[in-house]
Amino acid sequence: MFTDDAFRPLDRQECLRLLAKVPVGRVVYTLRALPAVLPVNFTLDTDASVLLRTAPGSELVHAVDGFVVAFEADDFDPVARTGWSVIVTGRASVVTDPADLARLSGTGPASWMPLPDSVLIRIEWELVTGRELLGACSAA
Amino acid sequence: MFTDDAFRPLDRQECLRLLAKVPVGRVVYTLRALPAVLPVNFTLDTDASVLLRTAPGSELVHAVDGFVVAFEADDFDPVARTGWSVIVTGRASVVTDPADLARLSGTGPASWMPLPDSVLIRIEWELVTGRELLGACSAA
Repeated sequence: MFTDDAFRPLDRQECLRLLAKVPVGRVVYTLRALPAVLPVNFTLDTDASVLLRTAPGSELVHAVDGFVVAFEADDFDPVARTGWSVIVTGRASVVTDPADLARLSGTGPASWMPLPDSVLIRIEWELVTGRELLGACSAA
Repeated sequence: MFTDDAFRPLDRQECLRLLAKVPVGRVVYTLRALPAVLPVNFTLDTDASVLLRTAPGSELVHAVDGFVVAFEADDFDPVARTGWSVIVTGRASVVTDPADLARLSGTGPASWMPLPDSVLIRIEWELVTGRELLGACSAA
């Protein structure tokens, strides 16, 4: 576990910049009353909300649509023992607005595997926390 | 999102082998009725349970001790679009048995930042799912 003084808190802009660097994050939700997590491809929309693409009718869609979820992304260097993590918490919803769907058809998240049919899930950016792990040689 | 036919399910032995290759995973739990997630250093105990080390009295300890949590680790190659993810679900508990504590003092998880005082959390291996992402050029 990482102690508090080993971290530097990240501001919103730093969190956005780092999230843009990684193609995979993890959506954290509740499924049948238990904690659940799933790695997903994602992008950030212009308002900083997180966008996921998933198969229609999937278990994920039913579990998150309308509910508060967490979304986490990170990158750690096991040699240097440095890295960062960002956690976005907010309400998830299926994107239904036709203008949004048209706009995001070309710029939204692409799955690493082609989906013949898909829905977009948006996670609103209500709370974000980010931390940079400073590494063993850094002064606290 | 990854479609089902882009994945190969992993058996228990493969999941164990892969988990042993990465130093950081993510514990997924519930905090104040909301989904929560935290990257953590971990190791696997001989019975395949997941071991985390954390500061005593930390928010994590109070949130997970006695509760079912999920633990996730993964590794993705953004160029090849391949990778794997493993999710362990089980009950978490603080390790209190003196024999276990003595045994794990040398072999248990080491935090990337030294903790002057710490507790060990064990996540029992009750349910494990693992998936290998086959990559865009693989036959389904």
